[in-house]
Amino acid sequence: MPEMTGTLKTYTEYLHFHTKKRREMIHITPQLEEIVARSGIRDGFCFVSPMHITAAIYVNDHESGLIADIEEWLEKLAPARPDYRHHQTGEDNADAHLKSLLLHHEITLPITNGHLDLGTWQRAFYAEFDGQRRKHVIVKLMGVAAPAQR
Amino acid sequence: MPEMTGTLKTYTEYLHFHTKKRREMIHITPQLEEIVARSGIRDGFCFVSPMHITAAIYVNDHESGLIADIEEWLEKLAPARPDYRHHQTGEDNADAHLKSLLLHHEITLPITNGHLDLGTWQRAFYAEFDGQRRKHVIVKLMGVAAPAQR
Amino acid sequence: MPEMTGTLKTYTEYLHFHTKKRREMIHITPQLEEIVARSGIRDGFCFVSPMHITAAIYVNDHESGLIADIEEWLEKLAPARPDYRHHQTGEDNADAHLKSLLLHHEITLPITNGHLDLGTWQRAFYAEFDGQRRKHVIVKLMGVAAPAQR
Repeated sequence: MPEMTGTLKTYTEYLHFHTKKRREMIHITPQLEEIVARSGIRDGFCFVSPMHITAAIYVNDHESGLIADIEEWLEKLAPARPDYRHHQTGEDNADAHLKSLLLHHEITLPITNGHLDLGTWQRAFYAEFDGQRRKHVIVKLMGVAAPAQR
Repeated sequence: MPEMTGTLKTYTEYLHFHTKKRREMIHITPQLEEIVARSGIRDGFCFVSPMHITAAIYVNDHESGLIADIEEWLEKLAPARPDYRHHQTGEDNADAHLKSLLLHHEITLPITNGHLDLGTWQRAFYAEFDGQRRKHVIVKLMGVAAPAQR
Repeated sequence: MPEMTGTLKTYTEYLHFHTKKRREMIHITPQLEEIVARSGIRDGFCFVSPMHITAAIYVNDHESGLIADIEEWLEKLAPARPDYRHHQTGEDNADAHLKSLLLHHEITLPITNGHLDLGTWQRAFYAEFDGQRRKHVIVKLMGVAAPAQR
């Protein structure tokens, strides 16, 4: 059945990352699926966003060759360079800001029948561009909860 | 009136595409408007996303010259090339993945008064970068339904 | 508490911009915070999008050096040039369309405890790429309203 009606439920969790390398791509679909299950939401949206401006969330293939291609492509289009104006503030991460903008930092995922409604190859990733410190990702869900079990 | 309150309604449909060419831009605003009408949702969000990682949904002009400019621009920034690492898996479509990332695959459209609340020139497109096979797009709406007619 | 349940509330306002320069980046987080407060929504989503195809909304740093870096980067990846096909229609703004696509035009922001749930440095911007005329931005919120005060 393509539709549901009911009381609105919202549900929020925060994920935490502290990468060993400055740049890292971390597959997070299983963690998101667990959050959907804990939320009890049956139909709605799952919004995922870093709370930082030097990281991103994106959806694409869980294939190591492609992930390396994506990293090389991001470096080509938004290269690390010393001469950004932002670096006059003492920072050295302007490229991380640009990479975050290029991937667009946030995603929304649909929830149907209590699960992420993704295609066969769609996987969600946390893209860290300036890590080696504690970072946070907000996961906020909104939708119709499953009727209580009796 | 800028606000509504009511029971939450969700409504989901799937669109299907099988393009003749490998790359194609398909205008889908009329189909989305029909889905909004069928949903009965009066105020809320309309989320649209391919269920694939070699396609995208974007909003821009329905003007053939600009669409050709966009295609040329995507090819310049995310060129088809033989030497992507992803191609060692037997695939030949790494550029399609990068083009999908560049456009960001998904959109959310606002619904007001039972219609897509778009500006004069805003139109939604399905961007196929690796077609000639059956592909799916999820359209999930969430909002307040119109009061039943009496 | 990570979850709320209740009646769905939607709330919509429109922002208006008329920039003096053709291109301008305008910080809008304070205006969005005021809209969240006026909405009375305690937990949910705040969607923000220009109603135009030559502008964008993005989230990043409120630091003038980085903003200049972003402008220079956008110009490099989506340069103003006379020879776009779109210009055969009499327009001269194809680069503004491409810049809008590159930043992805829209954002969703999470609302928690009646406020935008942003990280320390996350700020929302209106990015005008073809201004000097009146433009509109839709801000649509959806969520659980705070219980009425007694």
